[in-house]
Amino acid sequence: MLTVSEIPQCREVVVEAQRAGNRVGLVPTMGALHAGHLSLVEQARRDCRMVAVSIFVNPTQFGPQEDFAAYPRPIEADLAACRAAGVDLVFAPPAETMYPAGHVTTVRVERLTNRLCGAHRPGHFDGVATVVAKLFQILPADSAYFGEKDYQQLVVIRRMATDLDLPIRVVGCPTVREPDGLARSSRNVYLSASQRQQALCLSRALFTAVEEVAHGQRDGALLIERMRKLIEAAGAGRIDYIDIVDPETLEPMAVVDRAARACLAVWIGKCRLIDNVALAPPASGR
Amino acid sequence: MLTVSEIPQCREVVVEAQRAGNRVGLVPTMGALHAGHLSLVEQARRDCRMVAVSIFVNPTQFGPQEDFAAYPRPIEADLAACRAAGVDLVFAPPAETMYPAGHVTTVRVERLTNRLCGAHRPGHFDGVATVVAKLFQILPADSAYFGEKDYQQLVVIRRMATDLDLPIRVVGCPTVREPDGLARSSRNVYLSASQRQQALCLSRALFTAVEEVAHGQRDGALLIERMRKLIEAAGAGRIDYIDIVDPETLEPMAVVDRAARACLAVWIGKCRLIDNVALAPPASGR
Repeated sequence: MLTVSEIPQCREVVVEAQRAGNRVGLVPTMGALHAGHLSLVEQARRDCRMVAVSIFVNPTQFGPQEDFAAYPRPIEADLAACRAAGVDLVFAPPAETMYPAGHVTTVRVERLTNRLCGAHRPGHFDGVATVVAKLFQILPADSAYFGEKDYQQLVVIRRMATDLDLPIRVVGCPTVREPDGLARSSRNVYLSASQRQQALCLSRALFTAVEEVAHGQRDGALLIERMRKLIEAAGAGRIDYIDIVDPETLEPMAVVDRAARACLAVWIGKCRLIDNVALAPPASGR
Repeated sequence: MLTVSEIPQCREVVVEAQRAGNRVGLVPTMGALHAGHLSLVEQARRDCRMVAVSIFVNPTQFGPQEDFAAYPRPIEADLAACRAAGVDLVFAPPAETMYPAGHVTTVRVERLTNRLCGAHRPGHFDGVATVVAKLFQILPADSAYFGEKDYQQLVVIRRMATDLDLPIRVVGCPTVREPDGLARSSRNVYLSASQRQQALCLSRALFTAVEEVAHGQRDGALLIERMRKLIEAAGAGRIDYIDIVDPETLEPMAVVDRAARACLAVWIGKCRLIDNVALAPPASGR
């Protein structure tokens, strides 16, 4: 496994592999790798001869009151996990390599970023879109893999790649969960044992919605209300949002009469957790 | 000469040429080609085996009150000029190819775009940066050539390419002028014969500044005032700006004690003209 921190060298390794006829898969991460990330690596390995992972805690996607400083950075464990997973190339740059003095360019995806997490984290998706646009140039892979856990991020990045004609396939992969349903997240380490239990209300609420929709419930407001009650009953903290949206446009759906996405963000103590599921109404009987 | 309007085909031609070991040069234009554009093609031919020209009147860089509809589009003459100049590939897409329904992504270069033309054309450089970022993906050339006539545009694009790690060299080429000094511009066709004469005040004012700086004048405000008087004396229309700025940051320079750029934008009738020159103070004698 090759670990590089310089942009030209990184690009050269990817381009050389492609010139030799190999497909390259990229898994962009902020490190603190867990089973979710490793499932992306596995998918990349199935699709591509070379797998690259980037590890970069991107400062521009954190708000001033957010957990940039506290975000876990277990770089040695991350490198060991990459090595064990068969990763070929790790790009782990320092911040000044990604944002040298004078950096003033931002990639902004309008509309899709106004709602859900975007409404609660101003500038977050500008930071995400910009750093991913850069990573797609530094590691010009054939495919890039993102988890559906950050569903809005996946939709935003797919749109950005389409809109800017970036020649890279953006692949969404299923959320990986703990056996009890909690979505894997690097931020789960913030949770105490009791908060860890409380946090189960997110996935329980979402799975309840999945079940109700499968049984014919189509009333979006009612489904959201049901989820809200379950989360409040668990004694969780502030609910940033619970929404049912179109899977591509992220526009709210009042009636779940076609594929939809239920998304939520809830504070458990000082930890903001997000989760989401696909809602699939039963085929119409007529 | 190959003329294509589809993105995948265009990209394929460029990538194939590079795979065969050839350097590719790109000259992005809005068509209405004149001697200035052709000098860019010549420079590209000197540097590269394959030369590509894009012809696209980009709607997103025109303001609602600007001349998008009136902008000249002599496509047959442009193609003939490209053929005569030895261009290998022309990319001339329809607007819906560049901006299909749902396009919501913008590339923004902060700070550099707040002043000079950016202060008078809100959103203009967002449109420029976005379309050029796209063209750099569609035609992933080794080098791209831009005229210094649009000096701020050159600085903005160079910054954008650096900040987004685009693997393309941005090359600035000298402004091409008519024998009497008028900078070549596709918008010169808007000028009547008398306006054409009046328009000479732009380059005359700039050349006066060059001469005064060469003779030791370092007072920016005084130089600007001198240029303003010359332009007003010619009976020109509104002056959008006359400025002396740092060649890279575009910050105003009160004292011309090192290389600087004098830039101006002046209305001649309904035609807004821009021009600029390098100012080079004499080497200090001490």
